[in-house]
Amino acid sequence: MDTKTDLMSHHISQQFNTELEELRNNLLSMGGQVEKQVSDAIDALINADSEGAISVCEKDTDINSMELTIDEECSRILARRQPAASDLRLVLACTKASTDLERIGDEAAKIARFAISLTEQGEAPKGYIEARHIGNHVRQMVQDALNAFARFDADLALAVAKEDKSVDREYKSATRELVTYMMEDPRSITRVLNIMWVLRSLERIGDHARNIAEYVIYLVKGKDVRHIGIKRIQAEVFDK
Amino acid sequence: MDTKTDLMSHHISQQFNTELEELRNNLLSMGGQVEKQVSDAIDALINADSEGAISVCEKDTDINSMELTIDEECSRILARRQPAASDLRLVLACTKASTDLERIGDEAAKIARFAISLTEQGEAPKGYIEARHIGNHVRQMVQDALNAFARFDADLALAVAKEDKSVDREYKSATRELVTYMMEDPRSITRVLNIMWVLRSLERIGDHARNIAEYVIYLVKGKDVRHIGIKRIQAEVFDK
Repeated sequence: MDTKTDLMSHHISQQFNTELEELRNNLLSMGGQVEKQVSDAIDALINADSEGAISVCEKDTDINSMELTIDEECSRILARRQPAASDLRLVLACTKASTDLERIGDEAAKIARFAISLTEQGEAPKGYIEARHIGNHVRQMVQDALNAFARFDADLALAVAKEDKSVDREYKSATRELVTYMMEDPRSITRVLNIMWVLRSLERIGDHARNIAEYVIYLVKGKDVRHIGIKRIQAEVFDK
Repeated sequence: MDTKTDLMSHHISQQFNTELEELRNNLLSMGGQVEKQVSDAIDALINADSEGAISVCEKDTDINSMELTIDEECSRILARRQPAASDLRLVLACTKASTDLERIGDEAAKIARFAISLTEQGEAPKGYIEARHIGNHVRQMVQDALNAFARFDADLALAVAKEDKSVDREYKSATRELVTYMMEDPRSITRVLNIMWVLRSLERIGDHARNIAEYVIYLVKGKDVRHIGIKRIQAEVFDK
């Protein structure tokens, strides 16, 4: 069940092949745009670039439309082609993954809005290094999750799912430091809170990347691995 | 397309009818449990009841399993029955709604964890009234969204979608007050932040209830109304 050739099997109907290929391409192209939104939002925050931030907010509607288009394609394929086995898993993985990508887009837009608040209220005294670091980390997770989707690479997907724990640790440690800072300098609370919400959004992006990675494992391995934990995924699906 | 009789149309295969009915019942029963988790988590917070909070955390795994079961049923129906039109919409709405219900369950578990922290660190000096108020509000939204699903009631679903804006307003105003409080009493920051995260989770629950309401409108009216805003939903789908 593991190889790309099996997963993009050739159907008697050339049209059906094209439709599945198009669906996958649309998901990956949505993913590419979402990834760019995340990195643009982080850049806007770090560089106090409110124009850049506004542009991220504006582009969120494109992401939303892409989600609708993908879901429409999915229902059309389900209704007309009645896919089974790995084709059905591909369609279901696309409809689930598009929701997570849309939510990542929402979080990027939230980060951009906090970046705008911070340029208006003056920069936060702390938290940018952490935001950049966790930001790069989750952006990489999104990219890897999409690459795993593109290549039907379950091992890469497993690596993404594992990364989520380390993002959670980074997030917790950064939050703890920010709380200590706020206690020492209460006048900074509003600005530091803005950065805390940014970190929170980044942590959520990590969760969504992990979700997408889990759909890739479902797609390639045929087993739903949500909620079972990394150890059981390794043991039950990867024989590790 | 509007009536329940049309939506639960009788199929030549009695077995297919039973399967669709079972899927719907499972979703509603998952919804009932999730709603209880939300209200138990709020109660545990308000009453500083850490045992109650621990029980909410433990029950989250049941919610997770229910999501997997529903998605498994959905793929089985898609593969074997090749549903079309309103049957297909029902299956797709169930698979999407189960994800939102599972996330509501996650937020309830988060609230319970903050309730535990608060019993350990001592109560927060502020924010409980707001948590109870917004908590009741979003719990009612979840209940109404599920009732709308049970009765294929698009009008009730529209009302739920509208409520989300007012939850957002309540959340913003409560957060503002808490920030002011933290500045006045920096020693309370850690505890007040716990309550702020609770409010944040409640606000997210409102978003998920709105999502479910939108799937009900899609199911009943046949139009995907995500991302288009209440005014356009009313004009384009309800002729209001």
